[in-house]
Amino acid sequence: MKIYDMPGFPNPARIHIVLAEKGLAAQFDFVKVDLFSAEHKQPAFLAKNPGGVVPVLELDDGTHIAECIAITEYLDNLDGHPTLTGATPRDKALIHMMQKRADDWMIDGIGAYFHHATPGLGATLEAYKSPEWAGRKEWGERQLEKFKTGMRYFDSVLAQQAYIAGPQFSVADITVYCALLHAAFVGITVTGDYPALAAWQAKVADRPSVKNRGGQS
Amino acid sequence: MKIYDMPGFPNPARIHIVLAEKGLAAQFDFVKVDLFSAEHKQPAFLAKNPGGVVPVLELDDGTHIAECIAITEYLDNLDGHPTLTGATPRDKALIHMMQKRADDWMIDGIGAYFHHATPGLGATLEAYKSPEWAGRKEWGERQLEKFKTGMRYFDSVLAQQAYIAGPQFSVADITVYCALLHAAFVGITVTGDYPALAAWQAKVADRPSVKNRGGQS
Ligand SMILES: N[C@@H](CCC(=O)N[C@@H](CS)C(=O)NCC(=O)O)C(=O)O
Ligand SMILES: N[C@@H](CCC(=O)N[C@@H](CS)C(=O)NCC(=O)O)C(=O)O
Repeated sequence: MKIYDMPGFPNPARIHIVLAEKGLAAQFDFVKVDLFSAEHKQPAFLAKNPGGVVPVLELDDGTHIAECIAITEYLDNLDGHPTLTGATPRDKALIHMMQKRADDWMIDGIGAYFHHATPGLGATLEAYKSPEWAGRKEWGERQLEKFKTGMRYFDSVLAQQAYIAGPQFSVADITVYCALLHAAFVGITVTGDYPALAAWQAKVADRPSVKNRGGQS
Repeated sequence: MKIYDMPGFPNPARIHIVLAEKGLAAQFDFVKVDLFSAEHKQPAFLAKNPGGVVPVLELDDGTHIAECIAITEYLDNLDGHPTLTGATPRDKALIHMMQKRADDWMIDGIGAYFHHATPGLGATLEAYKSPEWAGRKEWGERQLEKFKTGMRYFDSVLAQQAYIAGPQFSVADITVYCALLHAAFVGITVTGDYPALAAWQAKVADRPSVKNRGGQS
Protein backbone atom coordinates (compact mmCIF):
# COMPACT_ATOMS: atom_id res chain seq x y z
CA MET A 1 0.00 0.00 0.00
CA LYS A 2 1.10 3.59 -0.63
CA ILE A 3 0.69 6.93 1.05
CA TYR A 4 1.06 10.11 -1.04
CA ASP A 5 2.81 12.29 1.45
CA MET A 6 4.58 15.55 2.14
CA PRO A 7 7.03 15.21 5.01
CA GLY A 8 6.73 17.92 7.64
CA PHE A 9 3.21 18.96 6.73
CA PRO A 10 0.41 18.92 9.29
CA ASN A 11 -2.24 16.78 7.56
CA PRO A 12 0.22 14.07 6.45
CA ALA A 13 1.56 14.13 10.03
CA ARG A 14 -1.89 13.00 11.25
CA ILE A 15 -1.50 9.79 9.27
CA HIS A 16 2.09 9.20 10.39
CA ILE A 17 0.85 9.32 14.00
CA VAL A 18 -2.06 6.96 13.21
CA LEU A 19 0.36 4.51 11.55
CA ALA A 20 2.66 4.63 14.59
CA GLU A 21 -0.26 4.18 17.02
CA LYS A 22 -1.40 1.11 15.07
CA GLY A 23 2.11 -0.25 14.34
CA LEU A 24 1.43 -0.26 10.61
CA ALA A 25 4.08 2.03 9.09
CA ALA A 26 6.25 -0.81 7.72
CA GLN A 27 3.40 -1.94 5.44
CA PHE A 28 3.45 1.33 3.45
CA ASP A 29 5.51 2.98 0.74
CA PHE A 30 5.59 6.77 1.05
CA VAL A 31 5.51 8.80 -2.16
CA LYS A 32 6.47 12.45 -1.81
CA VAL A 33 4.25 14.96 -3.64
CA ASP A 34 5.93 18.31 -4.28
CA LEU A 35 3.40 20.83 -2.99
CA PHE A 36 5.65 23.82 -3.67
CA SER A 37 5.59 23.21 -7.43
CA ALA A 38 1.84 22.42 -7.23
CA GLU A 39 2.32 18.80 -8.32
CA HIS A 40 -0.93 18.03 -6.45
CA LYS A 41 -2.89 20.42 -8.67
CA GLN A 42 -1.88 18.59 -11.90
CA PRO A 43 -4.13 16.02 -13.63
CA ALA A 44 -2.09 12.96 -12.55
CA PHE A 45 -2.60 13.72 -8.88
CA LEU A 46 -6.15 15.10 -9.24
CA ALA A 47 -7.14 11.72 -10.72
CA LYS A 48 -6.16 10.21 -7.37
CA ASN A 49 -7.72 12.96 -5.25
CA PRO A 50 -9.95 15.53 -6.98
CA GLY A 51 -9.66 17.56 -3.76
CA GLY A 52 -6.01 18.19 -4.67
CA VAL A 53 -4.51 17.70 -1.21
CA VAL A 54 -2.29 15.21 0.60
CA PRO A 55 -2.32 12.70 2.22
CA VAL A 56 -3.88 10.04 -0.04
CA LEU A 57 -3.90 6.32 0.70
CA GLU A 58 -3.60 3.92 -2.25
CA LEU A 59 -4.82 0.39 -1.60
CA ASP A 60 -3.30 -2.59 -3.41
CA ASP A 61 -6.45 -2.83 -5.58
CA GLY A 62 -5.80 0.74 -6.79
CA THR A 63 -8.53 2.38 -4.72
CA HIS A 64 -7.61 5.89 -3.53
CA ILE A 65 -8.75 7.16 -0.15
CA ALA A 66 -8.39 10.87 0.56
CA GLU A 67 -9.29 12.81 3.73
CA CYS A 68 -7.48 11.99 6.95
CA ILE A 69 -10.61 10.88 8.77
CA ALA A 70 -11.39 8.37 6.02
CA ILE A 71 -7.79 7.09 5.92
CA THR A 72 -7.89 6.78 9.70
CA GLU A 73 -11.14 4.77 9.61
CA TYR A 74 -9.41 2.35 7.23
CA LEU A 75 -6.20 1.99 9.24
CA ASP A 76 -7.92 1.84 12.62
CA ASN A 77 -10.34 -0.90 11.59
CA LEU A 78 -7.84 -3.07 9.70
CA ASP A 79 -7.12 -5.28 12.72
CA GLY A 80 -10.74 -5.39 13.90
CA HIS A 81 -9.81 -3.51 17.08
CA PRO A 82 -10.44 0.20 16.60
CA THR A 83 -8.61 2.23 19.25
CA LEU A 84 -8.73 5.69 17.64
CA THR A 85 -12.26 5.94 16.19
CA GLY A 86 -14.32 4.34 18.97
CA ALA A 87 -15.66 0.86 19.64
CA THR A 88 -19.17 1.62 20.99
CA PRO A 89 -21.87 3.74 19.31
CA ARG A 90 -21.48 6.43 22.00
CA ASP A 91 -17.68 6.56 21.66
CA LYS A 92 -17.86 6.63 17.86
CA ALA A 93 -20.31 9.52 18.09
CA LEU A 94 -18.29 11.56 20.60
CA ILE A 95 -15.05 10.98 18.68
CA HIS A 96 -16.57 11.89 15.30
CA MET A 97 -18.16 15.03 16.79
CA MET A 98 -14.86 16.20 18.29
CA GLN A 99 -12.91 15.14 15.20
CA LYS A 100 -15.20 17.28 13.02
CA ARG A 101 -14.84 20.28 15.34
CA ALA A 102 -11.07 19.73 15.28
CA ASP A 103 -11.12 19.67 11.45
CA ASP A 104 -13.43 22.66 10.98
CA TRP A 105 -12.27 24.96 13.76
CA MET A 106 -8.64 23.98 14.21
CA ILE A 107 -6.72 22.38 11.36
CA ASP A 108 -8.77 23.90 8.53
CA GLY A 109 -8.96 27.20 10.43
CA ILE A 110 -5.21 27.63 10.78
CA GLY A 111 -4.67 26.33 7.23
CA ALA A 112 -7.08 28.87 5.76
CA TYR A 113 -5.39 31.66 7.73
CA PHE A 114 -1.97 30.51 6.45
CA HIS A 115 -3.06 30.40 2.79
CA HIS A 116 -5.16 33.59 2.78
CA ALA A 117 -3.62 36.02 5.23
CA THR A 118 0.10 35.13 4.97
CA PRO A 119 2.35 34.36 1.94
CA GLY A 120 1.43 30.70 2.43
CA LEU A 121 3.40 28.20 0.36
CA GLY A 122 4.64 30.80 -2.10
CA ALA A 123 3.43 32.31 -5.35
CA THR A 124 3.37 29.20 -7.58
CA LEU A 125 1.05 27.27 -5.33
CA GLU A 126 -1.07 30.14 -4.06
CA ALA A 127 -1.98 31.05 -7.64
CA TYR A 128 -3.84 27.72 -7.75
CA LYS A 129 -5.23 27.84 -4.26
CA SER A 130 -6.41 31.31 -3.47
CA PRO A 131 -6.18 33.78 -6.31
CA GLU A 132 -6.61 37.40 -5.33
CA TRP A 133 -10.13 38.57 -4.47
CA ALA A 134 -11.41 41.53 -2.48
CA GLY A 135 -11.98 39.90 0.91
CA ARG A 136 -9.11 37.39 0.78
CA LYS A 137 -6.94 38.72 3.59
CA GLU A 138 -9.88 39.68 5.83
CA TRP A 139 -11.38 36.25 5.39
CA GLY A 140 -8.04 34.66 6.34
CA GLU A 141 -7.88 36.79 9.50
CA ARG A 142 -11.40 35.66 10.41
CA GLN A 143 -10.23 32.05 10.16
CA LEU A 144 -7.52 32.82 12.72
CA GLU A 145 -10.25 34.10 15.06
CA LYS A 146 -12.14 30.83 14.54
CA PHE A 147 -8.96 28.90 15.35
CA LYS A 148 -8.50 30.91 18.56
CA THR A 149 -12.12 30.28 19.55
CA GLY A 150 -11.35 26.60 18.97
CA MET A 151 -8.31 26.82 21.26
CA ARG A 152 -10.48 28.32 24.02
CA TYR A 153 -13.13 25.65 23.48
CA PHE A 154 -10.69 22.72 23.59
CA ASP A 155 -8.96 24.24 26.63
CA SER A 156 -12.33 24.19 28.42
CA VAL A 157 -12.94 20.59 27.30
CA LEU A 158 -9.51 19.48 28.51
CA ALA A 159 -10.08 21.13 31.89
CA GLN A 160 -12.82 18.47 32.38
CA GLN A 161 -11.37 15.33 30.79
CA ALA A 162 -8.02 13.75 29.89
CA TYR A 163 -8.42 13.76 26.11
CA ILE A 164 -10.38 15.65 23.48
CA ALA A 165 -13.25 13.14 23.16
CA GLY A 166 -13.19 11.66 26.70
CA PRO A 167 -10.93 9.56 28.91
CA GLN A 168 -9.12 7.89 25.97
CA PHE A 169 -6.75 9.19 23.29
CA SER A 170 -8.45 9.26 19.87
CA VAL A 171 -8.16 10.54 16.31
CA ALA A 172 -9.57 13.87 17.54
CA ASP A 173 -6.46 14.36 19.71
CA ILE A 174 -4.25 13.74 16.68
CA THR A 175 -6.12 16.37 14.66
CA VAL A 176 -5.93 19.05 17.34
CA TYR A 177 -2.27 18.24 18.00
CA CYS A 178 -1.35 18.59 14.32
CA ALA A 179 -3.33 21.83 14.06
CA LEU A 180 -1.17 23.18 16.90
CA LEU A 181 1.95 22.06 14.98
CA HIS A 182 0.80 24.16 12.03
CA ALA A 183 -0.07 27.07 14.32
CA ALA A 184 3.42 26.98 15.89
CA PHE A 185 4.89 27.09 12.37
CA VAL A 186 3.00 30.35 11.72
CA GLY A 187 4.02 31.74 15.13
CA ILE A 188 0.93 31.03 17.23
CA THR A 189 1.74 29.01 20.33
CA VAL A 190 -0.26 27.67 23.25
CA THR A 191 0.40 30.18 26.00
CA GLY A 192 -0.45 30.13 29.71
CA ASP A 193 -3.88 31.49 28.74
CA TYR A 194 -4.75 27.90 27.80
CA PRO A 195 -3.44 25.88 30.74
CA ALA A 196 -5.35 22.64 30.13
CA LEU A 197 -4.54 22.69 26.40
CA ALA A 198 -0.85 23.30 27.17
CA ALA A 199 -0.68 20.40 29.67
CA TRP A 200 -2.46 18.08 27.21
CA GLN A 201 -0.13 19.19 24.38
CA ALA A 202 2.95 18.28 26.47
CA LYS A 203 1.40 14.89 27.33
CA VAL A 204 0.60 14.08 23.68
CA ALA A 205 4.06 15.23 22.54
CA ASP A 206 5.45 12.58 24.85
CA ARG A 207 3.55 9.64 23.31
CA PRO A 208 5.88 7.25 21.46
CA SER A 209 3.75 7.57 18.29
CA VAL A 210 4.31 11.33 18.33
CA LYS A 211 7.85 11.49 19.71
CA ASN A 212 9.43 8.84 17.49
CA ARG A 213 8.16 9.77 14.07
CA GLY A 214 11.85 10.36 13.34
CA GLY A 215 11.22 13.71 11.73
CA GLN A 216 8.95 12.10 9.11
CA SER A 217 6.19 14.74 8.96
CA MET B 1 -33.74 10.23 23.62
CA LYS B 2 -34.24 13.67 22.07
CA ILE B 3 -33.37 15.38 18.83
CA TYR B 4 -33.12 19.17 18.75
CA ASP B 5 -34.64 19.84 15.39
CA MET B 6 -35.88 22.37 12.89
CA PRO B 7 -38.52 20.86 10.61
CA GLY B 8 -37.94 21.55 6.95
CA PHE B 9 -34.23 22.35 7.27
CA PRO B 10 -31.61 20.44 5.31
CA ASN B 11 -29.24 19.28 8.07
CA PRO B 12 -32.02 18.07 10.39
CA ALA B 13 -33.52 16.32 7.33
CA ARG B 14 -30.37 14.18 7.11
CA ILE B 15 -31.14 12.73 10.54
CA HIS B 16 -34.83 12.18 9.77
CA ILE B 17 -33.77 10.08 6.78
CA VAL B 18 -31.23 8.14 8.89
CA LEU B 19 -33.93 7.46 11.52
CA ALA B 20 -36.32 6.22 8.83
CA GLU B 21 -33.63 4.03 7.21
CA LYS B 22 -32.89 2.45 10.60
CA GLY B 23 -36.53 2.30 11.80
CA LEU B 24 -35.69 4.28 14.94
CA ALA B 25 -37.86 7.41 14.77
CA ALA B 26 -40.39 6.19 17.39
CA GLN B 27 -37.66 6.13 20.05
CA PHE B 28 -37.08 9.90 19.85
CA ASP B 29 -38.74 13.09 21.06
CA PHE B 30 -38.23 16.00 18.67
CA VAL B 31 -37.69 19.45 20.20
CA LYS B 32 -38.07 22.36 17.82
CA VAL B 33 -35.40 25.08 18.03
CA ASP B 34 -36.51 28.43 16.60
CA LEU B 35 -33.69 29.37 14.25
CA PHE B 36 -35.41 32.53 13.01
CA SER B 37 -35.26 34.13 16.46
CA ALA B 38 -31.67 32.81 16.94
CA GLU B 39 -32.67 30.55 19.85
CA HIS B 40 -29.69 28.36 18.88
CA LYS B 41 -27.27 31.25 19.47
CA GLN B 42 -28.37 31.72 23.12
CA PRO B 43 -26.48 30.24 26.11
CA ALA B 44 -29.04 27.48 26.82
CA PHE B 45 -28.57 25.94 23.38
CA LEU B 46 -24.84 26.72 23.08
CA ALA B 47 -24.33 24.64 26.26
CA LYS B 48 -25.70 21.69 24.27
CA ASN B 49 -23.81 22.50 21.06
CA PRO B 50 -21.13 25.21 21.15
CA GLY B 51 -21.27 25.10 17.35
CA GLY B 52 -24.73 26.69 17.57
CA VAL B 53 -26.44 24.58 14.91
CA VAL B 54 -29.11 21.89 14.69
CA PRO B 55 -29.56 18.94 14.77
CA VAL B 56 -28.32 17.80 18.19
CA LEU B 57 -28.92 14.35 19.67
CA GLU B 58 -29.45 14.11 23.44
CA LEU B 59 -28.83 10.68 24.95
CA ASP B 60 -30.72 9.52 28.05
CA ASP B 61 -27.55 10.05 30.15
CA GLY B 62 -27.57 13.74 29.10
CA THR B 63 -24.71 13.48 26.59
CA HIS B 64 -25.12 15.80 23.60
CA ILE B 65 -23.96 14.76 20.15
CA ALA B 66 -23.76 17.43 17.45
CA GLU B 67 -22.71 17.09 13.80
CA CYS B 68 -24.79 14.90 11.50
CA ILE B 69 -21.96 12.48 10.78
CA ALA B 70 -21.45 11.86 14.51
CA ILE B 71 -25.20 11.45 15.13
CA THR B 72 -25.34 9.05 12.18
CA GLU B 73 -22.45 6.96 13.54
CA TYR B 74 -24.42 6.60 16.78
CA LEU B 75 -27.73 5.68 15.17
CA ASP B 76 -26.23 3.40 12.54
CA ASN B 77 -24.23 1.37 15.05
CA LEU B 78 -26.95 1.06 17.71
CA ASP B 79 -28.15 -2.32 16.43
CA GLY B 80 -24.65 -3.64 15.68
CA HIS B 81 -25.44 -3.74 11.95
CA PRO B 82 -24.20 -0.56 10.31
CA THR B 83 -25.80 -0.11 6.88
CA LEU B 84 -25.06 3.58 6.27
CA THR B 85 -21.47 4.05 7.51
CA GLY B 86 -19.84 0.87 6.21
CA ALA B 87 -19.09 -2.55 7.67
CA THR B 88 -15.56 -3.23 6.31
CA PRO B 89 -12.48 -0.98 6.63
CA ARG B 90 -12.58 -0.25 2.88
CA ASP B 91 -16.29 0.64 2.91
CA LYS B 92 -15.92 2.81 6.02
CA ALA B 93 -13.06 4.64 4.31
CA LEU B 94 -14.85 5.21 1.01
CA ILE B 95 -18.04 6.30 2.75
CA HIS B 96 -16.24 8.71 5.10
CA MET B 97 -14.26 10.18 2.19
CA MET B 98 -17.40 10.80 0.13
CA GLN B 99 -19.33 11.98 3.18
CA LYS B 100 -16.64 14.58 3.90
CA ARG B 101 -16.64 15.77 0.29
CA ALA B 102 -20.44 15.96 0.46
CA ASP B 103 -20.22 18.03 3.67
CA ASP B 104 -17.46 20.37 2.50
CA TRP B 105 -18.35 20.87 -1.15
CA MET B 106 -22.13 20.39 -1.17
CA ILE B 107 -24.15 20.99 2.00
CA ASP B 108 -21.76 23.49 3.59
CA GLY B 109 -21.13 25.08 0.18
CA ILE B 110 -24.77 25.81 -0.55
CA GLY B 111 -25.36 26.84 3.09
CA ALA B 112 -22.51 29.35 3.00
CA TYR B 113 -23.84 30.77 -0.27
CA PHE B 114 -27.32 31.09 1.27
CA HIS B 115 -26.09 32.88 4.41
CA HIS B 116 -23.52 35.15 2.73
CA ALA B 117 -24.76 36.00 -0.74
CA THR B 118 -28.56 35.99 -0.20
CA PRO B 119 -30.77 37.42 2.61
CA GLY B 120 -30.47 34.02 4.30
CA LEU B 121 -32.69 33.45 7.32
CA GLY B 122 -33.41 37.15 7.84
CA ALA B 123 -31.82 40.03 9.73
CA THR B 124 -32.16 38.74 13.32
CA LEU B 125 -30.27 35.55 12.66
CA GLU B 126 -27.78 36.85 10.13
CA ALA B 127 -26.59 39.46 12.62
CA TYR B 128 -25.28 36.53 14.67
CA LYS B 129 -24.05 34.44 11.80
CA SER B 130 -22.37 36.63 9.25
CA PRO B 131 -22.07 40.28 10.20
CA GLU B 132 -21.11 42.60 7.37
CA TRP B 133 -17.49 42.51 6.17
CA ALA B 134 -15.85 43.58 2.92
CA GLY B 135 -15.72 40.27 1.07
CA ARG B 136 -18.94 38.76 2.46
CA LYS B 137 -21.00 38.58 -0.73
CA GLU B 138 -18.06 37.67 -2.97
CA TRP B 139 -17.10 34.87 -0.60
CA GLY B 140 -20.68 33.58 -0.68
CA GLU B 141 -20.65 33.57 -4.48
CA ARG B 142 -17.40 31.60 -4.44
CA GLN B 143 -19.10 28.99 -2.27
CA LEU B 144 -21.77 28.60 -4.95
CA GLU B 145 -18.98 27.89 -7.47
CA LYS B 146 -17.62 25.24 -5.11
CA PHE B 147 -21.09 23.71 -4.85
CA LYS B 148 -21.39 23.60 -8.65
CA THR B 149 -17.95 21.98 -8.94
CA GLY B 150 -19.27 19.44 -6.43
CA MET B 151 -22.36 18.80 -8.60
CA ARG B 152 -20.09 18.12 -11.60
CA TYR B 153 -17.88 15.85 -9.53
CA PHE B 154 -20.75 13.78 -8.10
CA ASP B 155 -22.36 13.59 -11.56
CA SER B 156 -19.14 12.02 -12.85
CA VAL B 157 -19.04 9.62 -9.88
CA LEU B 158 -22.66 8.57 -10.43
CA ALA B 159 -22.00 7.93 -14.12
CA GLN B 160 -19.74 5.06 -12.89
CA GLN B 161 -21.58 3.62 -9.88
CA ALA B 162 -25.10 3.38 -8.43
CA TYR B 163 -24.52 5.44 -5.28
CA ILE B 164 -22.16 8.15 -4.07
CA ALA B 165 -19.72 5.83 -2.26
CA GLY B 166 -20.17 2.65 -4.35
CA PRO B 167 -22.85 0.06 -5.11
CA GLN B 168 -24.75 0.62 -1.83
CA PHE B 169 -26.75 3.55 -0.47
CA SER B 170 -24.89 5.28 2.41
CA VAL B 171 -24.80 8.36 4.61
CA ALA B 172 -22.94 10.16 1.80
CA ASP B 173 -26.04 9.83 -0.42
CA ILE B 174 -28.17 11.36 2.33
CA THR B 175 -25.82 14.35 2.63
CA VAL B 176 -25.72 15.04 -1.12
CA TYR B 177 -29.49 14.59 -1.39
CA CYS B 178 -30.17 17.08 1.43
CA ALA B 179 -27.69 19.55 -0.08
CA LEU B 180 -29.74 19.39 -3.30
CA LEU B 181 -32.91 20.04 -1.24
CA HIS B 182 -31.29 23.22 0.07
CA ALA B 183 -30.11 24.16 -3.42
CA ALA B 184 -33.62 23.75 -4.83
CA PHE B 185 -34.90 26.06 -2.06
CA VAL B 186 -32.49 28.77 -3.24
CA GLY B 187 -33.44 28.15 -6.89
CA ILE B 188 -30.60 25.92 -8.07
CA THR B 189 -31.86 22.67 -9.54
CA VAL B 190 -30.25 19.63 -11.12
CA THR B 191 -30.63 20.23 -14.83
CA GLY B 192 -29.97 17.99 -17.82
CA ASP B 193 -26.33 19.10 -17.61
CA TYR B 194 -25.98 16.58 -14.78
CA PRO B 195 -27.75 13.48 -16.15
CA ALA B 196 -26.35 10.89 -13.74
CA LEU B 197 -26.96 13.14 -10.73
CA ALA B 198 -30.55 13.77 -11.88
CA ALA B 199 -31.28 10.05 -12.31
CA TRP B 200 -29.78 9.26 -8.90
CA GLN B 201 -31.78 12.11 -7.30
CA ALA B 202 -35.03 10.68 -8.66
CA LYS B 203 -34.09 7.21 -7.40
CA VAL B 204 -33.24 8.48 -3.89
CA ALA B 205 -36.42 10.59 -3.77
CA ASP B 206 -38.33 7.35 -4.25
CA ARG B 207 -36.85 5.54 -1.24
CA PRO B 208 -39.43 4.99 1.53
CA SER B 209 -37.12 6.70 4.07
CA VAL B 210 -37.08 9.82 1.91
CA LYS B 211 -40.62 9.74 0.51
CA ASN B 212 -42.48 9.08 3.76
CA ARG B 213 -40.93 11.55 6.15
CA GLY B 214 -44.46 12.99 6.26
CA GLY B 215 -43.28 16.54 5.72
CA GLN B 216 -41.13 16.35 8.90
CA SER B 217 -37.97 18.09 7.67
N1 LIG C 1 -9.25 17.73 4.78
C1 LIG C 1 -8.00 17.24 4.26
C2 LIG C 1 -6.93 18.31 4.38
C3 LIG C 1 -5.66 17.98 3.66
C4 LIG C 1 -4.74 19.20 3.43
O1 LIG C 1 -5.20 20.36 3.49
N2 LIG C 1 -3.45 18.91 3.17
C5 LIG C 1 -2.51 19.96 2.93
C6 LIG C 1 -1.12 19.56 3.45
S1 LIG C 1 -1.04 19.79 5.19
C7 LIG C 1 -2.34 20.19 1.45
O2 LIG C 1 -2.28 19.25 0.67
N3 LIG C 1 -2.22 21.46 1.09
C8 LIG C 1 -1.92 21.86 -0.24
C9 LIG C 1 -3.01 22.66 -0.84
O3 LIG C 1 -4.04 22.88 -0.18
O4 LIG C 1 -2.84 23.05 -1.99
C10 LIG C 1 -7.62 15.95 4.98
O5 LIG C 1 -8.20 15.65 6.02
O6 LIG C 1 -6.77 15.19 4.48
N1 LIG D 1 -22.07 20.51 10.17
C1 LIG D 1 -23.34 20.60 10.81
C2 LIG D 1 -24.24 21.55 10.05
C3 LIG D 1 -25.51 21.91 10.80
C4 LIG D 1 -26.19 23.15 10.23
O1 LIG D 1 -25.59 23.99 9.55
N2 LIG D 1 -27.50 23.28 10.55
C5 LIG D 1 -28.27 24.42 10.13
C6 LIG D 1 -29.72 24.01 9.84
S1 LIG D 1 -29.85 23.23 8.29
C7 LIG D 1 -28.33 25.46 11.21
O2 LIG D 1 -28.50 25.13 12.38
N3 LIG D 1 -28.23 26.72 10.79
C8 LIG D 1 -28.41 27.83 11.66
C9 LIG D 1 -27.19 28.66 11.78
O3 LIG D 1 -26.17 28.30 11.14
O4 LIG D 1 -27.25 29.65 12.46
C10 LIG D 1 -23.96 19.21 10.92
O5 LIG D 1 -23.48 18.28 10.25
O6 LIG D 1 -24.90 18.99 11.73
